[in-house]
Amino acid sequence: MSDPSSMHDFEDIDEVEGAETRREPTPTRVPGAPSVPNPAAIGNPKEDLASLDGLERHLYAHRYAEIGIDCYGPSIDPSRATADRGEAQAILKEEDQALLCSAGTGALLDRLASESSLLSPMQRAQVRVLHRDRDRLVGVPAQKQSALTRLLAESDQVWHKAKAENDWTSFEPYLNRIVVAMKEIASLRDPSRDPYDVWLDEFEPGTDRAFYDNFFAEVKGAVVPLYAEIRKRGWQPDRSVIEGHFDERRQWELAHDLMALEGLDPDVMFLTSTEHPYSDALTTNYAIIAAHVYPDDVVSNVYTMLHEGGHALYETGVNPAFNYTSLKGGTSMGMHEGQSRFFENYVGRDRAFAPRLLEVMARHFRGQLGRVTPNQFYLATNRAEGQPIRTEADELTYPLHILVRYEIEQALFSGEAKAADVPALWRKKYHDYLGVDVKDDTHGALQDSHWSDGLLGYFPTYALGGAFGAQLRHQMIVEGMDWDSVLGSGDLAPIREWLRDRVWQWGRAKDSGQIIQDACGEPFSARYYVEYLDEKFSDIYGLR
Amino acid sequence: MSDPSSMHDFEDIDEVEGAETRREPTPTRVPGAPSVPNPAAIGNPKEDLASLDGLERHLYAHRYAEIGIDCYGPSIDPSRATADRGEAQAILKEEDQALLCSAGTGALLDRLASESSLLSPMQRAQVRVLHRDRDRLVGVPAQKQSALTRLLAESDQVWHKAKAENDWTSFEPYLNRIVVAMKEIASLRDPSRDPYDVWLDEFEPGTDRAFYDNFFAEVKGAVVPLYAEIRKRGWQPDRSVIEGHFDERRQWELAHDLMALEGLDPDVMFLTSTEHPYSDALTTNYAIIAAHVYPDDVVSNVYTMLHEGGHALYETGVNPAFNYTSLKGGTSMGMHEGQSRFFENYVGRDRAFAPRLLEVMARHFRGQLGRVTPNQFYLATNRAEGQPIRTEADELTYPLHILVRYEIEQALFSGEAKAADVPALWRKKYHDYLGVDVKDDTHGALQDSHWSDGLLGYFPTYALGGAFGAQLRHQMIVEGMDWDSVLGSGDLAPIREWLRDRVWQWGRAKDSGQIIQDACGEPFSARYYVEYLDEKFSDIYGLR
Repeated sequence: MSDPSSMHDFEDIDEVEGAETRREPTPTRVPGAPSVPNPAAIGNPKEDLASLDGLERHLYAHRYAEIGIDCYGPSIDPSRATADRGEAQAILKEEDQALLCSAGTGALLDRLASESSLLSPMQRAQVRVLHRDRDRLVGVPAQKQSALTRLLAESDQVWHKAKAENDWTSFEPYLNRIVVAMKEIASLRDPSRDPYDVWLDEFEPGTDRAFYDNFFAEVKGAVVPLYAEIRKRGWQPDRSVIEGHFDERRQWELAHDLMALEGLDPDVMFLTSTEHPYSDALTTNYAIIAAHVYPDDVVSNVYTMLHEGGHALYETGVNPAFNYTSLKGGTSMGMHEGQSRFFENYVGRDRAFAPRLLEVMARHFRGQLGRVTPNQFYLATNRAEGQPIRTEADELTYPLHILVRYEIEQALFSGEAKAADVPALWRKKYHDYLGVDVKDDTHGALQDSHWSDGLLGYFPTYALGGAFGAQLRHQMIVEGMDWDSVLGSGDLAPIREWLRDRVWQWGRAKDSGQIIQDACGEPFSARYYVEYLDEKFSDIYGLR
Repeated sequence: MSDPSSMHDFEDIDEVEGAETRREPTPTRVPGAPSVPNPAAIGNPKEDLASLDGLERHLYAHRYAEIGIDCYGPSIDPSRATADRGEAQAILKEEDQALLCSAGTGALLDRLASESSLLSPMQRAQVRVLHRDRDRLVGVPAQKQSALTRLLAESDQVWHKAKAENDWTSFEPYLNRIVVAMKEIASLRDPSRDPYDVWLDEFEPGTDRAFYDNFFAEVKGAVVPLYAEIRKRGWQPDRSVIEGHFDERRQWELAHDLMALEGLDPDVMFLTSTEHPYSDALTTNYAIIAAHVYPDDVVSNVYTMLHEGGHALYETGVNPAFNYTSLKGGTSMGMHEGQSRFFENYVGRDRAFAPRLLEVMARHFRGQLGRVTPNQFYLATNRAEGQPIRTEADELTYPLHILVRYEIEQALFSGEAKAADVPALWRKKYHDYLGVDVKDDTHGALQDSHWSDGLLGYFPTYALGGAFGAQLRHQMIVEGMDWDSVLGSGDLAPIREWLRDRVWQWGRAKDSGQIIQDACGEPFSARYYVEYLDEKFSDIYGLR
């Protein structure tokens, strides 16, 4: 997903320096900053709206280029091209920042905010979102930001090598440098807040450590003892029924069928292969899913596709009128994960959906799966089982993987830990929460690309997304949706329509807290998530 | 290949309107134009050089984005994404044009040109090339240019469908509109010149109808009678020795071996598949080859790879110091084709190289090719044989395919013909020059994407490239290169080094005419081309 920003102009109005409004520090003038209107000028609402359109058009083109480079670059670029790609991205982002942070843009947004009664609801949302995007950047000199962009391009390469070679030491200095740079940028953005809070709020507007501490306390309080009980019980469903060799080409054909089952329009989809699955969208007419297939594990492919498909449904379900504006795309990382996990888990790992999913899979793998029963399939894909890899985690233990990362990130930001301490912390927490002994850093602290990508503060949204999804599902059922029969029919249209109406269509026009409030008639609560997990896994493991 | 242009800024210098220098009409101010320095200001050479760097940095980032979108977009984007891609490209190009055409950029370039003694040779070349790029755009309002960009995005889709359905009529109005738009833009660029001349000069600086009329007269005068004689002779080499079924996966493996044989560095290459092969490069560290394989025609794959590989050698052989400047990339379309055809024909279809090429191919296709002799292979891949498809043409008849297009483009521009007349003209010329009866427009005037891409004036460079290559080859031999033994050794390093030294390294710092003059010690002449064709094909067909 992408934070917009960029490049535009306000016809024929010359710039006047030193006439700033609002609290922000003077932005550093950088090469690339376009001309901006006189911040002291009296606004003409019609001209201001034209300027808003101009701003959005240019942000659109830059966003389109930047998302494309981000999506395709790392998976297809030749190895020697990394530095050039990083340089191009850094310059594009500098231009974005210079435009959004210019005094003229600030004054324009201030005037538009004060002309609120003349604006449509959509325009009001645009102004609100642009204002926030600007406030996040305005105190950060463009060179600081682009220095981080370049550091990350380099770190990404170092991390790839370090992971392949189980070599935490080579990555260590990069992680330390990334934390230093992220703390510095957070302090420039808002010196009054804790730096980690600034980054938590970046990925999930409205959240901070207090919010997540509460959330994780509730999750930990329920899941750690539940999983301990499961371990004590000692029994596991039979997984061998879904094991075997699965031809890769057929798996890709299956992937297309899964997109159809989920309800994705093939005319707006590009499916490609990659090491680390992801999805993104340039507009509602262009979503990308990058997935992988393993010949010895068809189930991994199936749930990756359902997961990434949920992201793509969200992105392509936004109001198309938002395409060329900053309201484009999902509102937050947590709400995005709420949609992807919805289709992966609440739909894809539900007992009622198992016959439909198995049916589609068996169409491609009759020999391996033709005799598996839906109940065997359901149990085999719902084993709660501690193991070291986050992306292979089951639904129950998944939030514990996130908890480990959340606690370590807090320690890195507070200074309680340095990068050198991470592997030991990692081992201890995996042992305590998941009962797992991590054998090496490749299967431990080096497994994820997030830190080398500068995404500290992002992991918690994965767990939060699970909780968003549970609350939305609960609400559908409260409103009378016959969950089992919808899933049992294999036609997910009622679910898609509900989510499109309450969540997807709004794009960034509502924050996640507002979306939950409006969709469910009450604020966010972790209750539905822990209740769901407790009920489902107690049932599977016969605990109560 | 790409015409650069774009987005930058000149620190803290406010804009003053209405103080333009030089002959150009006032550029329309468009949203997106960044602030520019005072065109009337007295220059400070040090600041001017910093501004030049700033300009180049921003042009670099835009070029990187635009080439990437151009390269990958049409081959991988989902069908519904076309309009959004066109919109993003149009906005990016508007920004480029606004920056390059601003009065401030003009004044900067004027000052730098007058401070010539303070500039390095590289900086002088940058100023010269930027000046020319600017002069080409400055009279064209950005909206006119972007209207064409949008028309072309739509035309491309219409053409794809029209070609598939043999439906010239649906494409007709688009071609008429494209010609109208290109004539209008040409007149805005330079009202004193014939519009077709303007476009010929766009793709090959220094050329016009007079130049090409001479060139094609010489080619036509030699090739049409030579090919008529071959037809009369009635004999053709046996092609069946290279026919058969060739597994597609192995053909892709062969493609990688061919890149190695040609001397391409895999660390800077991305090879992908497409319907219409092309290549491009983002920097010297990132070249793309998009090729295709046909299971029933391995030879098509082989020569496509050698051809596109020649383009990629040129792009990646430019002085790396030019990467982030406007001097990046090949100097003209003709010189580019000079390199691609060099490796496709002068190397790839040479008798001395046949054993080496066959050896690599037989490694993958022992069963089909293990018993073919180099001489059989040489003859089979050098049949001169009129057929309707340009991209499948042999070396001898190829320029006649181009001649047809050149003459039709002239007629469209002069008004002598409308799009509705093209199919009949096409049939007549194919009959007269090539002895071919074109069966339908899919295999006739709809076969190429160039017109729907707005590339009228481009085709002639394909034939010119063949002639550039012939002259360069002649010069290598004159200077003592033992052609047969270099090709026979399979190590093409001496050829690459010669071309790198005389052609590739210069990027856009020299025009093609200058490159030929400096490389060969005399101006361009078509003589070496027609002599080469005459000698080679007279020998193969035993004519003299």
